[in-house]
Amino acid sequence: MAEKFASRRNIDFLISEVFDVVSLNRFPYFKDHDEETFKMILDTAMKISADMMFPYFKEMDVNPPYWENGKVHVCKKAMVPFLKEMGEGGWIQAEKPYHIGGQQLPLAIKDLAYFLFGAANYSMHVYQMLTAGAANLIYQFGTQEMKDLYLEKMYSGKWQGTMALTEPDVGSSLGDLTTTAQPTDQGYYLIKGQKIFISAGNSDAADNVIHLMIARLKNGQVGVPGISLFVVPENRINENDELEYNDVQCGGIEHKLGYKGSPIVQLTMGEENNCRGWLVGEQGKGLAQMFKMMNEERVNVGIGAISKISGAYYAALEYALQRKQGRKPDQKDPAMPMVDLIEHADIKRMLLFQKAVMEGSLALATQISLYQDLVTVEENAEENEMLADFLIPVLKTYPSEMGILATSAAIQIHGGYGFCGDFPVEQYYRDIRIDPIHEGTTGIQGQDILGRKVSLKKGKAFELYVNEVEKTIAQAKAYPELGKQTDSLQVAVQLMKDLTAELIAKKARITNEAFLADAVLYLEFMSQIAIAWQWLKLMIASVRALKSEPSDQDKAFYQGKIFTGRYFFDYELIKIHSLAIRLRSDDKVTVEMTREYFAD
Amino acid sequence: MAEKFASRRNIDFLISEVFDVVSLNRFPYFKDHDEETFKMILDTAMKISADMMFPYFKEMDVNPPYWENGKVHVCKKAMVPFLKEMGEGGWIQAEKPYHIGGQQLPLAIKDLAYFLFGAANYSMHVYQMLTAGAANLIYQFGTQEMKDLYLEKMYSGKWQGTMALTEPDVGSSLGDLTTTAQPTDQGYYLIKGQKIFISAGNSDAADNVIHLMIARLKNGQVGVPGISLFVVPENRINENDELEYNDVQCGGIEHKLGYKGSPIVQLTMGEENNCRGWLVGEQGKGLAQMFKMMNEERVNVGIGAISKISGAYYAALEYALQRKQGRKPDQKDPAMPMVDLIEHADIKRMLLFQKAVMEGSLALATQISLYQDLVTVEENAEENEMLADFLIPVLKTYPSEMGILATSAAIQIHGGYGFCGDFPVEQYYRDIRIDPIHEGTTGIQGQDILGRKVSLKKGKAFELYVNEVEKTIAQAKAYPELGKQTDSLQVAVQLMKDLTAELIAKKARITNEAFLADAVLYLEFMSQIAIAWQWLKLMIASVRALKSEPSDQDKAFYQGKIFTGRYFFDYELIKIHSLAIRLRSDDKVTVEMTREYFAD
Repeated sequence: MAEKFASRRNIDFLISEVFDVVSLNRFPYFKDHDEETFKMILDTAMKISADMMFPYFKEMDVNPPYWENGKVHVCKKAMVPFLKEMGEGGWIQAEKPYHIGGQQLPLAIKDLAYFLFGAANYSMHVYQMLTAGAANLIYQFGTQEMKDLYLEKMYSGKWQGTMALTEPDVGSSLGDLTTTAQPTDQGYYLIKGQKIFISAGNSDAADNVIHLMIARLKNGQVGVPGISLFVVPENRINENDELEYNDVQCGGIEHKLGYKGSPIVQLTMGEENNCRGWLVGEQGKGLAQMFKMMNEERVNVGIGAISKISGAYYAALEYALQRKQGRKPDQKDPAMPMVDLIEHADIKRMLLFQKAVMEGSLALATQISLYQDLVTVEENAEENEMLADFLIPVLKTYPSEMGILATSAAIQIHGGYGFCGDFPVEQYYRDIRIDPIHEGTTGIQGQDILGRKVSLKKGKAFELYVNEVEKTIAQAKAYPELGKQTDSLQVAVQLMKDLTAELIAKKARITNEAFLADAVLYLEFMSQIAIAWQWLKLMIASVRALKSEPSDQDKAFYQGKIFTGRYFFDYELIKIHSLAIRLRSDDKVTVEMTREYFAD
Repeated sequence: MAEKFASRRNIDFLISEVFDVVSLNRFPYFKDHDEETFKMILDTAMKISADMMFPYFKEMDVNPPYWENGKVHVCKKAMVPFLKEMGEGGWIQAEKPYHIGGQQLPLAIKDLAYFLFGAANYSMHVYQMLTAGAANLIYQFGTQEMKDLYLEKMYSGKWQGTMALTEPDVGSSLGDLTTTAQPTDQGYYLIKGQKIFISAGNSDAADNVIHLMIARLKNGQVGVPGISLFVVPENRINENDELEYNDVQCGGIEHKLGYKGSPIVQLTMGEENNCRGWLVGEQGKGLAQMFKMMNEERVNVGIGAISKISGAYYAALEYALQRKQGRKPDQKDPAMPMVDLIEHADIKRMLLFQKAVMEGSLALATQISLYQDLVTVEENAEENEMLADFLIPVLKTYPSEMGILATSAAIQIHGGYGFCGDFPVEQYYRDIRIDPIHEGTTGIQGQDILGRKVSLKKGKAFELYVNEVEKTIAQAKAYPELGKQTDSLQVAVQLMKDLTAELIAKKARITNEAFLADAVLYLEFMSQIAIAWQWLKLMIASVRALKSEPSDQDKAFYQGKIFTGRYFFDYELIKIHSLAIRLRSDDKVTVEMTREYFAD
C-alpha cells in the first residue's frame, strides 16, 4: 500500500510562504509561537498520523466497529492509545487559552494538523474532532459547573463528545425535531426521544460519551424557537463522583458505504424515564448555539474531504510513477519498453485535477482559519467573521463534491486495480461520499450562501469578499508571468459581481423557491472562483520563490505549483461560463416540474 | 427496498413512438416480428428481471462469490435457474439467424431486454452477456467444428463464456501481452500464461467455461501483429465427448468495490504444460477479431451503466415521493406539515439529472442498435456501421462517467440513509464505478474518438453523424414549442463542426501527444451533443403524442419527457461551452507537466 498520504512540505509552503501565519504573533494571544513551534507541532502531527493512524486505515474499514448488547466495540488497540495521545498532547483544545489548558495555537495550524490526521485515517480522527466541537459548546455556553464537570475529562480524551441532532424523521429540517425535554425542579430536564446517525455516539474506547443534544421543551413552541441545547451524558455523575446509568441506550449501528471505522449509532433516551439532560445556554436558543458547533464541524468536514483527496492522490501518484503501461502517442514502436503511467498526458491530467482541487481547497481552509484567528484576537472581528462565515459553505462543499470526482480519478489511474480492495483508493472513494451529506447537505449549503450569506448585512460579506479577491488580483499584477491567470480571475470576479447583482435584482420579482432553485449551481460557481483566487495566491508565492534561486528540489516544487495553477485556471475555472448560462436562464424547469410528471 | 428498477412504459415509447423499430420488418430477416412479438419479448424480459434477478440484487452483494480450492462458488440458487432460463428462452443468441437457433430479433429489442436485466441485477446479467459475446466470436471467426462443439452448449446456458484479455502487467496496452501459444502438430496450441480480472471466469453454476483468449504466438512478432485469438476451454472435450481437465487454474478472486455478484478471477494456463487452445480465425488477427467482441461489450457496458442509473433513479424517486422533510421556501410556517422531498426544487433537479442522463443514453443505445440492425440486413451497411462505430465511445463512456454523478445524486436524495446499506443506492454507486474502466477505459475511448473515429475515411463517419443530427434539427423545426432546444442544438452542431475542424487543422502542427491530450474532454463535448440530439428526438415524439389527445396518464408521461428535455438542454448541454474554451486552449499543461514537478 502507498506510504504517503499528505505532503508535509506543502504545509510549510502554506504557512510560511503563502500566508505568513507566524505574523499572528504580533498579537499577545499568539506571542509565544514562532515558525519553530509551528513546525514542531506539525511534525508531531505528521508523526502521530503516520505511526498511530495510517497503519489502521484499512484495518478499521475491513473490521469495522460492531454492536453487541447495547455497546459498540471499536478497534481498541488503535483507538485507546490514540485518544490518550490526543488528550496528553492537548490536540483537542489546542487553540484555547492557556488558563483552560489550551496552547493558544492559531486555528490555521490546528486545522492543518487536523488535515494530516484526516488524511491518515479520518475515521479515527473524527472521534477527537467531535469531542473538540462538543467541548467547545460547553466552553462557550455552559455554566462554570458544567465546565468543571466535563471539560477536563473531554480535553484529556477520556470522555468522548458528540453532536446529537438528527432523528429518524428529521434530517435537514432540524426545526421539526421531536425529542423532548421536560423541566424538573431538580435543575435537570428529563429527555425522551430518539437520535440517529450519531458519529462516535457509543464506543468502548472512552469511559463516557457526552452528547450535546438539541431537544424541544415539552409543550414548548413549534419550530426553531422551541429548541434548546442540552448536555446529555451517556453516564451521569452522581453525588459521589461516580458514573451512573443515564438511560441513554445505543440501539444499533449503521452499516455504511464508507467511513466505517467511525460507528454511526442510534440512541434512545428516556425509555425508563430516567434520562437527565442539563440546559446549555439559553432556552430556545438551541439551534443557534448548535450552529456554532456546526460551523466548526462544517470546516472540519471540508478539511476532512481535502484529506481524503490527499490520501487518494498520493496513492494514485505513487502508482502512476511505478506502473508501466503502453507508450506515448508519438512512440508507438512495440519493441520499445513500456513507459510509466505518469508519462501519459491523460494520467497527468487526472493527477493535476486531484492536486488542484486538494491544494486549492487546503489553501482556502487556511485562509478561513486565519480570518477566524483574527476574530479570536478581536482584529476587525466583525469583518473577519463575516469573511469566514461567507466562505464556509464553499469549504464544506467544494472538496466534498469535487472529492467524489477526485477520488474517482485516483481509482481511474489504477485501472482495474483501483476497483479492488488491495489498493486504498476505493476506500477513499467510499469514505468521502458522506461529506456532501453530513453537517448540512450540499443543498443546505447552497441555500445558505445564496439565500443568506450573499445578502447578509446588505451584501457586506459579499463586498468584503470581493475586496479580498481584488487585493490578490492587484498583487498578481506585479508578475507578468501570471498575466493570463490574473486576467481570467478578473473576468471571473466581474462575472460574479454582475451575476450576483442580477440574481438579487430578480429576487424581488420571483418566488423565493424560484430564486433558490439553482442555489447549488450558484455555490459551485462561487466555489470555482474562490479556489481560483487561492490558486492565484499559490502561484504568486511560487513565482516569488523561484526568483530567489531555490535548490533544484524546491524549484521543481514551485514549478509544480505553477503547472497545477495553470491547470486549475484552464480546466476548472472555465466551468463558471457554463454555470453562468444556466444561472441566468429564466426557464424554471426544476420548479415547474411536479411529481405527477415523474410517473412512468 | 424500492420495487421498481426500470420503466417498461419508457421502452414502449422508445420502440414505438421514437424509433419505430417495427418498421424493420420491411426486411425479410425481421419479417416475422411485429409490435406484438416485441412487447411479448420485453414483457418476458421484465418478468425475468423482476422475478428471477432483482430479488438477488442485494443478496449477491452481501454474500459475494468466494473462491475455495480452485473453484469459485456463486449464488447457485439464483444463477442456475437464471442461466437455464436464458438458455431455454434463447436470450443469448436472440439476434442470430433461425438456422443456428436464433430468433432474428432486432438488436434494438435485445439490447432493451438486456437493459432490463442489467437494471434488475447487472452482476447476474453479465454471465450470459459475456457468454453471448464469446459465442459470437466463435460464430463469426470459428471453424464449423468449433461451432458444432461449443455454440449449442453456450447458447443453452450450460457453458459459460468469457473474454480473457487482461494480464497482471497488461491492461490498456493489450499489444504487450505475454501469454504464449505454442503450435503443436495436433491442431491445437499449448497455452501458457496468466490472465486477471476475468469476469465470470470460473463458477460452479456452469458445467464448463469457454475462454476466448488472446495470446502471442511463441517466438512470434512483438506488438499487435503477434497476437492471435484462441478458444481455451476450462475443460476440453476428449474423443469420448467427455470433459477433461485442460490445465486452466483459477488462482483466486478479486475483492472489489462493487459488481460483487460477478466473480472476477485470476487464471493460470499451462502450469502443467497441458493447456490446449485452438486458433480462432487468422493468425495475427487476434486483436482485430477481439475488438469485434469488445465493441459489442462496449455497447453492453454502456447499457449496463444506464441500467444502474435506472435502478438508482427509481429508488431515489420512490424515496423522494414518500419521505417528508422541511417546507418549501415560501411556506416556512413550522406549524404546517412537512412536505414530501419531491416538493423541493433541488431534489427535482437531482431527479431530472438522473432521468435525463438515463433516458437520453438509452435512446442513444437504441439508435446505435438500429444502425447495427441495418448492417445485419445490408441496408447502407457501410454507412450504418460507421455511424454505430462512431458513437460507441460515447455510449460506452457517457453513462459510465455521468453515472458516477447520477448514482451519487440518488444517494444525495436519500440523505444519510443513502450512505447506509439498508437502501440500494449505495450499491448502484459502487457497482457502476467499474464501467469507466472495463472494456476500454475512458482514456482509451477518448483516444478512439478523437484519434481514430473523427478522421476515419477522411472524416466520412463524422460527416454522416452530422447529417443525422441535422436531420433531427430539420424535423424539430416543425414544432415551434421546441424552438429553444432546436436552436441550442443547431448552435452546438456548428460549434462541433468548427471545433473539430480547428483541432484537425492543428494536428498537423503539433505532436500527436499534444493533439490527444484532451481527448477525454473532446469525448465529453461530443457526448453532450449526442445526448442532446437524442433528447430532441424524445421531445419531438412527445410533442407529437400530446397533439393526439392522450389519456391523462399518458399526458403526464409526455409532459415529463418535455420537462426532462428542457432540463437537459438548460443544465447539461451548456457544458459544451466551457469544454470548448479548454479544447481551444493552446496551453498544453498536461503535456508539459512532467514527473519531477509532482514531487513534494
